[in-house]
Amino acid sequence: MTKPEFGVNFEAYFLGPKGENYDFYEKLLKETLKDHIHWRKAFHADTSEDFITDADKRRADFRKSQEKIEDTLHRLTELLKKNQPFFSPRYIGHMNWETMAAPLIAYFSAALYNPNNVAKAGSTGTSDLEIEVGKDFLKLFGFDEIKGWGHICTGGTIANMEALWMARNMKVIPVVLKEMLKTFKIKDKLSTIPTKKLLKCFNPGEILDLKDLVLAKIKKAVQDDKKVENTFEHIDMQERGLIWEGKGIDIGVVFLPETKHYSLKKAMDLLGLGRQNACFVPVDKNYRMDMKKLREMIFEVSRKRPILAVVGVVGSTEESSVDEIDQIIEIRKELQEKKDMGFHIHIDAAYGGYVRSLFLDQNGNFMNKEQLAEQLKLFGIIGDKKERREVSWPHKEVFKAFAAMPEADTITVDPHKLGYILYPAGGIAMKDKRMRESIQTFAPYVFPRPQEGEPDALIGAYILEGSKPGAAAAAVWTAHRIMPLDITGYGKLIGETIDGAQALWYGLTHSSPFTFENNIKIRVYPVIKPDINIVNYAFNFEGNRGLEKMNRLTSFISDEILGYLPRNGKLILDRKFIVSTTDFTIEEYENSPLPFLQRIGFSKEEWNKIRTVKIIRSVIMSPYLTPDYVDVNYVQMFIDYLREEITRNSEQILKILS
Amino acid sequence: MTKPEFGVNFEAYFLGPKGENYDFYEKLLKETLKDHIHWRKAFHADTSEDFITDADKRRADFRKSQEKIEDTLHRLTELLKKNQPFFSPRYIGHMNWETMAAPLIAYFSAALYNPNNVAKAGSTGTSDLEIEVGKDFLKLFGFDEIKGWGHICTGGTIANMEALWMARNMKVIPVVLKEMLKTFKIKDKLSTIPTKKLLKCFNPGEILDLKDLVLAKIKKAVQDDKKVENTFEHIDMQERGLIWEGKGIDIGVVFLPETKHYSLKKAMDLLGLGRQNACFVPVDKNYRMDMKKLREMIFEVSRKRPILAVVGVVGSTEESSVDEIDQIIEIRKELQEKKDMGFHIHIDAAYGGYVRSLFLDQNGNFMNKEQLAEQLKLFGIIGDKKERREVSWPHKEVFKAFAAMPEADTITVDPHKLGYILYPAGGIAMKDKRMRESIQTFAPYVFPRPQEGEPDALIGAYILEGSKPGAAAAAVWTAHRIMPLDITGYGKLIGETIDGAQALWYGLTHSSPFTFENNIKIRVYPVIKPDINIVNYAFNFEGNRGLEKMNRLTSFISDEILGYLPRNGKLILDRKFIVSTTDFTIEEYENSPLPFLQRIGFSKEEWNKIRTVKIIRSVIMSPYLTPDYVDVNYVQMFIDYLREEITRNSEQILKILS
Repeated sequence: MTKPEFGVNFEAYFLGPKGENYDFYEKLLKETLKDHIHWRKAFHADTSEDFITDADKRRADFRKSQEKIEDTLHRLTELLKKNQPFFSPRYIGHMNWETMAAPLIAYFSAALYNPNNVAKAGSTGTSDLEIEVGKDFLKLFGFDEIKGWGHICTGGTIANMEALWMARNMKVIPVVLKEMLKTFKIKDKLSTIPTKKLLKCFNPGEILDLKDLVLAKIKKAVQDDKKVENTFEHIDMQERGLIWEGKGIDIGVVFLPETKHYSLKKAMDLLGLGRQNACFVPVDKNYRMDMKKLREMIFEVSRKRPILAVVGVVGSTEESSVDEIDQIIEIRKELQEKKDMGFHIHIDAAYGGYVRSLFLDQNGNFMNKEQLAEQLKLFGIIGDKKERREVSWPHKEVFKAFAAMPEADTITVDPHKLGYILYPAGGIAMKDKRMRESIQTFAPYVFPRPQEGEPDALIGAYILEGSKPGAAAAAVWTAHRIMPLDITGYGKLIGETIDGAQALWYGLTHSSPFTFENNIKIRVYPVIKPDINIVNYAFNFEGNRGLEKMNRLTSFISDEILGYLPRNGKLILDRKFIVSTTDFTIEEYENSPLPFLQRIGFSKEEWNKIRTVKIIRSVIMSPYLTPDYVDVNYVQMFIDYLREEITRNSEQILKILS
Repeated sequence: MTKPEFGVNFEAYFLGPKGENYDFYEKLLKETLKDHIHWRKAFHADTSEDFITDADKRRADFRKSQEKIEDTLHRLTELLKKNQPFFSPRYIGHMNWETMAAPLIAYFSAALYNPNNVAKAGSTGTSDLEIEVGKDFLKLFGFDEIKGWGHICTGGTIANMEALWMARNMKVIPVVLKEMLKTFKIKDKLSTIPTKKLLKCFNPGEILDLKDLVLAKIKKAVQDDKKVENTFEHIDMQERGLIWEGKGIDIGVVFLPETKHYSLKKAMDLLGLGRQNACFVPVDKNYRMDMKKLREMIFEVSRKRPILAVVGVVGSTEESSVDEIDQIIEIRKELQEKKDMGFHIHIDAAYGGYVRSLFLDQNGNFMNKEQLAEQLKLFGIIGDKKERREVSWPHKEVFKAFAAMPEADTITVDPHKLGYILYPAGGIAMKDKRMRESIQTFAPYVFPRPQEGEPDALIGAYILEGSKPGAAAAAVWTAHRIMPLDITGYGKLIGETIDGAQALWYGLTHSSPFTFENNIKIRVYPVIKPDINIVNYAFNFEGNRGLEKMNRLTSFISDEILGYLPRNGKLILDRKFIVSTTDFTIEEYENSPLPFLQRIGFSKEEWNKIRTVKIIRSVIMSPYLTPDYVDVNYVQMFIDYLREEITRNSEQILKILS
């Protein structure tokens, strides 16, 4: 086993698929509980209060209550065993693997105190941890640590909603400023720009600068800061909503790739924008947003309407594809030059955000391509000498996309995905902290306006959520302190999963067909070589040109052989491998699945007829898939197992053909 | 100590202010971890995989990583000690007390499996627990268990947003149906009703029935169900947003009491409705929504605009006041009869929801007034024979309000408040599960449309959030299984806190003045006798008619004597009591604070000049405030401590006067 001698040894970070680190973590868990109890006892230790006495404990109803508690927890632990074995390299389904043990202990430890990070008054011990984590996000994405801001939320869905909410509310600010100039009778060239134009022509950074500039000018003239601020707040989007004096205000179109997470559609609905104001951009053969089409669509729309935002996905939910963020930046520049128009760039890196740590050296600097290739090779992270796979990661487009992330306005990132931290732990980072004021709500009992307190302690005034576990901040903080957000920490761990995904892709691509009697053969077809670590594939009978039969075959294999539910008397824990599935439908993907289908022999007509293709999806979050850390080749084992099971089920499988 | 011999003995449920139940819960915690490790080991136990070997553990980088983990967790536990001592009866600040220990262990235990309750595929062991919890909510609020639906979310903020989101989206359904009748050229009397009228005239239940009825009619005529459904989804609020063909569609006004939680203002912004479409209803002298004014305002608005929703608060954040839900129901009936108009009724019972368990007998039936009074007296829950306080809880208005809750449409409830469960655990219950379809979003990889699966397993398709901890469901489920949602369980525990709040209110009201030399006296003035268990009070110099001086005095006492931050070299843990504060401002409360201020000697002019009154707010979540369970009278101790500290700080205090 070649285990590189650099950076963290991530085998110490998990309980282990067989609970190998049980003793170590049990000790820490017990210490943490004991330590908390000491803290409680130290509080007014000198006083005579005696809450629960030995006599109390001897009462019959006390014992009965204890029995009830014990029984219930035992029942629970039994029920929990119906869950999926995320901890195993044999679980290659959804975005789950075992989470690091220390963040779990940190969560437990903090939950004993149960702080509420909505405001510092309820979280004197954990608000600061969240602020540190916010800075970690800024560093990870190359945002300025002073100008930017980041915080934890429940998950990527909330982060995506919050980003679009800020984008929506900021969009009208220039119009609000124009109205204010009129109200206060102040001359400024802004007043001469038509409202329609004002909604079109700025990027978020420009809007925020403009707001500062114009409000300062008005304040200087009016000599009553509070009045000016109140007036602003009285006519902005927060106050007015989307309908102004009975009329709808057109703040424009949001461009989403077909591979968008469904939460972005949800956000369009939630925010009152309506899904019809989202334009879905087709993806290219790598399932990345098609930049040529995006450019065309933007320029087409720009003739009539504002562009509110473009969302690029870094690590799509189904394919782990990485949109070319650098190209989105380029298109924005071009649009600005040619048409004097701007828009918000949001990156949904809920899945792929932590992958950026692979590109950062020990000092947190983004490496150039040569440095990166050298490091990956030197430390043997991706690519395995024992096989014929070549070190070809990352694609150059993927490299450029990660390099360009600091130029975006907002970024969603999920510690509870590739951060290997327990739920709930989502996050958002923004380039410019002034953005948060566009969605602020104050409440005197918990966060008075910042002049009266420290603004950074008022997390809850600037976010979508309210009460939130300080324990989640403790968990993420702990994870980031023990696992550096660079190539020596998360990079190394995630690199191994990319290695595993590449190995699985290679193994499936090069596997010989599964052969039945009568020379009937089944082949497995990976959809793309993944940008990160999700492998999609479908099964087909060689020569079959009927898409429905292929779908039935893939469904049979996924449900009967690789499914997550008990089947034929087999318990979940008897499953040798577990995958997840999805459907690429014409509704969600238009014709994007066509190149794949045509490559494996289907016609466009067949696609138009069936309109959906069943896909098996394996998210590789385990570092154990390749034999670098364990003397087992899971990729080979998986293919062998498939062969065995396909043969064993040949009767049922052949029925699909007839 | 008079400890009633009925129901659960809640002293067994907590770790205890001095960690008295440490041994019991440490054992359960260890068992749960061990049990999980067994589960891991049992998964393909026969195979030879050896992930982390003894040799691995001996490596230098493994030990180094372990040290880093250990050090970090030790650093964390030190930092956590900066948190507030929620566990103590001396903490009478925000809505926090110690949480039950078993739900915390349940959270830990489930987090070892780390299920994601967004969809059953990721939570085969915990989705069902959330569905059970949803049913618990329905029972608690008297909703029909078959027709209704409930689920867990991150907190009350999200629940309030989700409720108003559903209300918003449902409001346009009659108009959508009218358009569909036209599209499919089907005759129906609905087509003859003007759009403006359609937006006005229905309650949510009627809208849902109408949808079923009209869609069934169209389906029957068109003979293509899918086409009909697609058409509906293509022109509803989710798709169109708030702006229809460039025009704003007026879906009306939301009525909120001045005591509303700030999340409702946030929701107005988030949903694109704008805060200006919220009407804030003044509160009466008990800080309950003024029903006379609500009625007037509704009838006034109804002449021009639709009413979208009325939100009643059960347990206001600052005062624990309970709005008269029964009166809201009455007003809706009257509006329907007289004006043929309807609206959505949402109850924000984030704080007060669990209080309803006090009104339910052991069989879950809502007791009548006599039964309740008898039970409260019999079991000595509220009112203490040793003092002169009389058993006067609940006010008859409060009783009626809780009785009427089953007639609302949606209810927010927070297990992480009076459910004594760790963060995050919010919840929502709805009377009619068809509502959830108004905000549904599907995603093939995780929740295909329900015809292909069990709809109840697709929690994530019908909620605001995405990925969510199955561990939170395990925690709430455990709490509900060990602590019945009736008078023998939660009722008994919460009853003791109400008793404590009444005692504190009584003690403050009847305390003799704090006297200085020169016959200067300070008095403490409770604002109201609380509906539940939050006591608000302010301090004033006897005879002082200047509001600013009173505010400065109250601020001095709250910050210097009762504050939550270290001060004058004193650590938090040296604080003898800790409170929270708030400001009742004219912006939030208009003239509602006036009756209180006038009662204690301030003029209307003074209020209009100063516009804010500083209030100390004590949320009583500890059952130990009265000497029923411990031989200490904390109320008396608190007043004595105040007296002592006010004397000790007399020099600084007297400066305020000069």
